[in-house]
Amino acid sequence: MSHLLPLIYKKRDGLTLTQEEIESFVQSLASKKPPPDYQIASLLAFIFSKGMNELETATLTQAMRMSGLQFDYKNFPKGSLFVDKHSTGGVGDKITLALAPLVAACDERLHFPTIAGRGLGHTGGTVDKLESIPGLKTSLSLSAFYKILKKHRACFLSQTKEIVPADQILYALRDVTGTVENIPLMTASILSKKLSETLNFLILDLKYGNGAFLTDMDQTEKLAESLISVARDSNLRAQLCMTRMDTPLGHYSGNRLEVAEAIAILKEQGPEDSTELTKDFTRRILQWSGKTLKEADHAIEKALHTGAAFKKFVEVVEAQGGSVKAFEKAHKSVQSKLKTFSFKAPQKGYLFYDVRKLGLALVELEAGRKRKEDKIDPDVGFYHPLEAGTRVEANTEILRVYYKEARQLAECKKMLESAIQIKSEFFPKSPLIRKVLTT
Amino acid sequence: MSHLLPLIYKKRDGLTLTQEEIESFVQSLASKKPPPDYQIASLLAFIFSKGMNELETATLTQAMRMSGLQFDYKNFPKGSLFVDKHSTGGVGDKITLALAPLVAACDERLHFPTIAGRGLGHTGGTVDKLESIPGLKTSLSLSAFYKILKKHRACFLSQTKEIVPADQILYALRDVTGTVENIPLMTASILSKKLSETLNFLILDLKYGNGAFLTDMDQTEKLAESLISVARDSNLRAQLCMTRMDTPLGHYSGNRLEVAEAIAILKEQGPEDSTELTKDFTRRILQWSGKTLKEADHAIEKALHTGAAFKKFVEVVEAQGGSVKAFEKAHKSVQSKLKTFSFKAPQKGYLFYDVRKLGLALVELEAGRKRKEDKIDPDVGFYHPLEAGTRVEANTEILRVYYKEARQLAECKKMLESAIQIKSEFFPKSPLIRKVLTT
Repeated sequence: MSHLLPLIYKKRDGLTLTQEEIESFVQSLASKKPPPDYQIASLLAFIFSKGMNELETATLTQAMRMSGLQFDYKNFPKGSLFVDKHSTGGVGDKITLALAPLVAACDERLHFPTIAGRGLGHTGGTVDKLESIPGLKTSLSLSAFYKILKKHRACFLSQTKEIVPADQILYALRDVTGTVENIPLMTASILSKKLSETLNFLILDLKYGNGAFLTDMDQTEKLAESLISVARDSNLRAQLCMTRMDTPLGHYSGNRLEVAEAIAILKEQGPEDSTELTKDFTRRILQWSGKTLKEADHAIEKALHTGAAFKKFVEVVEAQGGSVKAFEKAHKSVQSKLKTFSFKAPQKGYLFYDVRKLGLALVELEAGRKRKEDKIDPDVGFYHPLEAGTRVEANTEILRVYYKEARQLAECKKMLESAIQIKSEFFPKSPLIRKVLTT
Repeated sequence: MSHLLPLIYKKRDGLTLTQEEIESFVQSLASKKPPPDYQIASLLAFIFSKGMNELETATLTQAMRMSGLQFDYKNFPKGSLFVDKHSTGGVGDKITLALAPLVAACDERLHFPTIAGRGLGHTGGTVDKLESIPGLKTSLSLSAFYKILKKHRACFLSQTKEIVPADQILYALRDVTGTVENIPLMTASILSKKLSETLNFLILDLKYGNGAFLTDMDQTEKLAESLISVARDSNLRAQLCMTRMDTPLGHYSGNRLEVAEAIAILKEQGPEDSTELTKDFTRRILQWSGKTLKEADHAIEKALHTGAAFKKFVEVVEAQGGSVKAFEKAHKSVQSKLKTFSFKAPQKGYLFYDVRKLGLALVELEAGRKRKEDKIDPDVGFYHPLEAGTRVEANTEILRVYYKEARQLAECKKMLESAIQIKSEFFPKSPLIRKVLTT
C-alpha cells in the first residue's frame, strides 16, 4: 500500500524519478494490487506542481505504452506503411473521418489504423460521430480490426481496456483531481496511445486558441515542443501542426452534421477550412512516404475527383457494419424535420467566438456530454459558416441551431449569448496552421 | 463528487482559498457524503506545493476545530483556568506525564485537560506510556473525563472520533500521501485539537534537531512563527519553546521506563534535562497565571518536595482506573527479569546521536510501531544517560538495551549502529531550550 510513498516524496521535493521508479509505478497501475487512488492522486499533483523533465516524460510515455497491447502488423504485405493523426480536440473537428479514407485512397501502401474516443465536455469525439451512421460499430475484436485494416487500409477502433490501460486509469483520475492540463502528463497520454499503434508516421494536430484544450499560447508552444521531443526520443516519426481553434472547424458541429460534412469534403463539396486541413495533413503524409509535393497534390486531387476517396469511406463504413446510403437518406429526412433557431448579430462589427463556450452550448443542446454516462442526441447541432474576425452587419445570421425539443434550445441559447460576441474593433483572422514542427 | 475541483484548481494555480471554500471543504470531510479520497489527496498535495497564507491557515484551523466537540467547562468553579502542553514529539519525551500533576499541584485554579495520542514511527505516544500502568484507561466517556478533571484538575483523555474528526480524516490521508511535513497543515492539525480543548493557555513544545519531526532548522523556525501567529489569530494565549531533540530526552526511552522516569521527576529523582523541562513549562504556566517568578519557583519546589505533585499523579492515575503502587511493583519485577545489552563506544571521541534512528531502533525493539495496527511491548526500552556532545572514552557504555527476546534485539542493534556515532571533532552541546515565542 505504501510503495508509492518514496516516489511521492521524491517528486514532492523536486527530485527526478528514475526509469525503474516510473516503470514500477506504471506497471502497478494495471496490476492486481494497484496503489490506492489517493496515492496516485498525490503523485499526479506533485508531478503537476514540480514537472517532469524530457527523459522522465519519455520514460513515462514508454512505460504507459507497454502497459497494454501493441499493434502487430506481421501479416500485412511487405512495404505497408502505418500512419495516423491525433487531434487535441475542439469544436467541429471531423478531420479524421475524411482523412483516413483519403489517405488510404491516395497510396496503396498506406494504412490508417486509428484508435478513437468519445467526446467529453466542450470537445467532440470521433466514435460519437461515427455512431450517427446506421449500423456502424467501432468496438471491434482485434482480429476484426486487423482484417478490415488489411483489406481496406483504414479502420476506426474504439478504445478498449487492452489498449494502454495505464493511460485510462491515470486519465480517469486526472479528470477528477484537477491534473489534466499538465504538459508531461498530456504528452505521455497522447503519445503512449499512438505508440501502441506501432505507426511509421504520425500527424499531431495541436489546437491553439480559445477553444483549444490549452488556451494559453505559451503552454501550447511548450506542449508542442514536448510532444515532438518525446516522439523523437521514442523513435516515432511525427509532424506537429498547430491549428486554429478560435473558430469552430468547418461549417457544422454536431455528430450527424459532422459526418455529413466529412462526406462533403470527400465529394469536393466541403467548406474551405476543413477541406484544406484534410488535404494538408494528407499532403504531409504523402510527402513523408516519399512523394514530391506535386505528386502528392496530384494523388489527392485524383482520389477526390474520381470518387476513390469517397468510395474508400463507403467501403470502410460497410466493413464496420454501417451504411453510407442509409446515413445519407436518414440525414436528409432528419434534417428536414429539425427545428431551427437563428442566432443573429445584434449589431455590426467583427465576429468573435469563445469556442470553448460554443462547445459547451453544444453540450447543452445534447450534442455532447457533461459526464461520461450522459447520452447524446446524434441529430442536433450547429451551422456556423463564418470565420472569427469576419465583418458582419446587424442581423446577419451567425449561427443556426438544429434542435428537436424546446428544452434542448433553452440553456443552449444562454450559452450562445456568451459564446458569440460582435466586437467593434477590427482584429486579424488567425492562420489555419500557425506552426509546424517535425521530429 | 466534483465539488472539490474548483478548490483544487484554485490552489493548483496558486490562488488563495476563501473562508467559505475552506469551511465547506472541512465540513464536507466529516459529512455523510465526504469528497472522494483522491480529491482530498490532490488538494492536500497542491496545498503542500503552493502553501497557504496566515489567514487561510487560521481559517483552516478554526474550521477543523469546529468539526468536532468543544470542551465546555460550564460546571467548573468560577476562576478555573485550563492549560495544556503540546509536544511535536521525539524520543524519550515523557514530560506530559509529570507536567500535568505538577501543574495541578501548584495552583488550585489550574486544570490540565489533555488529549493524548499513540506513538507511530520514531516518536512515542502518551497513551502508550500510560497504558503500561496496570488498569489505567484513557478512553473515557466525556462525562467521566469532566468528572475526573473537575475533581483532580488533571486528566489524560485519548483521542476519540468526536474530537476534531476533520483532523483525523486529513491526518490519516496525509500520512499515506506524503503531505505530512507541511507548515500550514501541521499548524492547523496541532492547533485545531488544542483549540477544541477550550484552553486559557497552551505551551507548545516544538522539537528541533535530528530527532524532531522537522529536521530542517529553517522549516522549524517557520513552523514556530506559524503556530504562534495562528494561535494569536485564534485568540489562544500560548508560549512556544523550541526544545532540543538531538539527544533523547531524559535517561530512559520505552513506555514503562518513561513512566518510571516521570515518577522519578515527581519524586525529585529524575534526570536533569527532563526535570528541568518539566519545571520550566510549569514555571511558564504559573507565571502566565499571575505568579511572579519567585512565587512560581517556590510553588514548584513545594509541590515536589512535599510529595504533593506525586500524590496528584497517584490520584489521577487511580481516578482513571490505574494503580501507581501496582506499577512500581511490576516495574521492579519486570526490570530485574529483562535481558540487557550494552552499546559501548567503539573509540574515544564526542557522542553523536541520530535521534530519529534511535527512535526507529526502539520500533525494532517493539517499543514503538511501524504501522498503526502493530502491537507494542510496554516493557522494553533504552537507558541513555549521556548527552550528545559528551566526550567519551573507548568502551564507555553509551546505551543499554532492555529486551526480552533475541529477535527484538537483532534488528535493533543494527539500527543502533547507525544511530550512535563517535565523532573525533568536538562539537558544542545544543541548548535544552533554544528559543521562546509568545502570542
